[in-house]
Amino acid sequence: MENKIKILAFAGSLREHSYNKLLLQGVKAVLPEDFTMEIFDLSVIPMYNQDDEDHMPDTVLEFKEKIEASDIILIASPEYNFSISGALKNALDWASRPYNQNSFDDKPVGIMGASFGMMGTSRAQYQLRQIGVALNMRIINRPEIMLGMASSKFSESGELTDIKTKELILSMLTGLRAMIK
Amino acid sequence: MENKIKILAFAGSLREHSYNKLLLQGVKAVLPEDFTMEIFDLSVIPMYNQDDEDHMPDTVLEFKEKIEASDIILIASPEYNFSISGALKNALDWASRPYNQNSFDDKPVGIMGASFGMMGTSRAQYQLRQIGVALNMRIINRPEIMLGMASSKFSESGELTDIKTKELILSMLTGLRAMIK
Amino acid sequence: MENKIKILAFAGSLREHSYNKLLLQGVKAVLPEDFTMEIFDLSVIPMYNQDDEDHMPDTVLEFKEKIEASDIILIASPEYNFSISGALKNALDWASRPYNQNSFDDKPVGIMGASFGMMGTSRAQYQLRQIGVALNMRIINRPEIMLGMASSKFSESGELTDIKTKELILSMLTGLRAMIK
Amino acid sequence: MENKIKILAFAGSLREHSYNKLLLQGVKAVLPEDFTMEIFDLSVIPMYNQDDEDHMPDTVLEFKEKIEASDIILIASPEYNFSISGALKNALDWASRPYNQNSFDDKPVGIMGASFGMMGTSRAQYQLRQIGVALNMRIINRPEIMLGMASSKFSESGELTDIKTKELILSMLTGLRAMIK
Repeated sequence: MENKIKILAFAGSLREHSYNKLLLQGVKAVLPEDFTMEIFDLSVIPMYNQDDEDHMPDTVLEFKEKIEASDIILIASPEYNFSISGALKNALDWASRPYNQNSFDDKPVGIMGASFGMMGTSRAQYQLRQIGVALNMRIINRPEIMLGMASSKFSESGELTDIKTKELILSMLTGLRAMIK
Repeated sequence: MENKIKILAFAGSLREHSYNKLLLQGVKAVLPEDFTMEIFDLSVIPMYNQDDEDHMPDTVLEFKEKIEASDIILIASPEYNFSISGALKNALDWASRPYNQNSFDDKPVGIMGASFGMMGTSRAQYQLRQIGVALNMRIINRPEIMLGMASSKFSESGELTDIKTKELILSMLTGLRAMIK
Repeated sequence: MENKIKILAFAGSLREHSYNKLLLQGVKAVLPEDFTMEIFDLSVIPMYNQDDEDHMPDTVLEFKEKIEASDIILIASPEYNFSISGALKNALDWASRPYNQNSFDDKPVGIMGASFGMMGTSRAQYQLRQIGVALNMRIINRPEIMLGMASSKFSESGELTDIKTKELILSMLTGLRAMIK
Repeated sequence: MENKIKILAFAGSLREHSYNKLLLQGVKAVLPEDFTMEIFDLSVIPMYNQDDEDHMPDTVLEFKEKIEASDIILIASPEYNFSISGALKNALDWASRPYNQNSFDDKPVGIMGASFGMMGTSRAQYQLRQIGVALNMRIINRPEIMLGMASSKFSESGELTDIKTKELILSMLTGLRAMIK
């Protein structure tokens, strides 16, 4: 257990039956033996206000600790209005604070997303990549995981059934494993 | 009063002494006589969760009504990690919902921002412009108002003192006035 | 003829059988009676070098004149490496010069693109929209015309056969007509 | 010589006295002993046309060979109309072809730029980063080298005189050295 590669993952959607949450469950279902994976629920993170930085909320401190204790970060982002969700941006901003204590610094990061439409959250993912430069994330280039027409790629009980996506997930994990310093 | 051009404005920062809030006060201070301007405080908007759309929060309904009743929208955006704040994205997403009831549809919109550094929130503003395409905002191209080194551009009591910025604001308002259908 | 709405169109791909060139032919095929449309071939435009601005090439001067004489600009952009082609960027840059003689200033512009893959040049189009802010183009927000899997949407002889795309083109032309001042 | 780290560098501007060309000369002037650096002049690259891929131009083949033989790529990009130049995009596209023979694949890449204005080519650089994802470049996150007000940062004879920029260059080279596999 101690020697396993630790993944911390979170989804940018707060709704209960989010496809992006299911996508992270799909990662868990195919996780190779040398990884462990924890999913953090962003709904516990309050709205960021710089005035609150002197007393960082406990949930934010916990989020930051978990990020820092991980080897790899996975982000499953929905696309809202051609960008990431406010909830995801808010969590990223909190974890980058206070000044000079950015929890994401130099972490290998994999990004993915699921959407009803054809684009598979691509517009959100390219905006997220720009944010990742600010956060000094090392976001893997390939594969890109953009799961369009998501409703056809999960079973009725919510299991990821799309074989190609499973292969992409395994390929991304292999790539991320190689990026750990 | 009835015949005046109605502006609804909001800032993407929630902190009390935000430069972006002060920038909106600066707009108010130079507002031509044929405009009225109301500033909406985004701190009352809860985090978006699609599951809550069946019972839209009252503050969101009020926000949507005020947007729809306005002729022009002004957004003062800080830049957090090369993008807009979670609070701003969250408010934009709420106001775009539910499906087919996007309050921003076809509105003339002016965007601006103030930052401590040199960039003046430019990276956030270009991401916001992409979001504006999704929201079918008609965001004015010019002038761009990117107030770098903001701490030198307000008085100790928080008044906008930078003459060039005041001129840009008036130029933007003139441009937006011409965009009203 | 004199009273018709003049469109100048160009494709960002130089290859002979480009889907983006065919897409512009598809626009021509459905063009309403009150429009005329000329297609400009970008292959005549040399590579931009600021040192050559003192003697602007004749083909560039002709390109600029045609843009300025038009009511509407249509751009069909391929996507190369998640952005627009060098040939297209080069032509846009030339037409924006010399300083203060940007031919695109305040023009209504429609953008579209065709690709073999699923994305339909969307990444190129969002980068093009940012360039359009610099050029003070008024790029229409909707509809977006992103023709994925292009090989299935033209006949063997190169005619646009996809009914949905034809409808989008007509919708875009209607929107652009309303944007003419 | 054999054991030195090989840099291939190129500027996106073709004009003779380009600040971006001078910036690359500035890199050469501070180059640590364990590096060698060659500057490739993009003016020899013809405009890309997919129809020409069957007979790739000799200059393109030479460009591709030099990229592939290098350990690190440096790109000095001007900003034209909020994006990179057509000449730079064109060269990147050529070097990515033909299919599955992308010369930039997995290369460590540093990007920089100089401009007359304040932004220091930042808008171009973020678009270039997106292109870099397509090209599977490993573009270093930090430092960002965005040399605004370039005319004040070189001597009359064209030497880079700005100490802070020299420090950033050395910091970027140190970071890139660590990224070589």
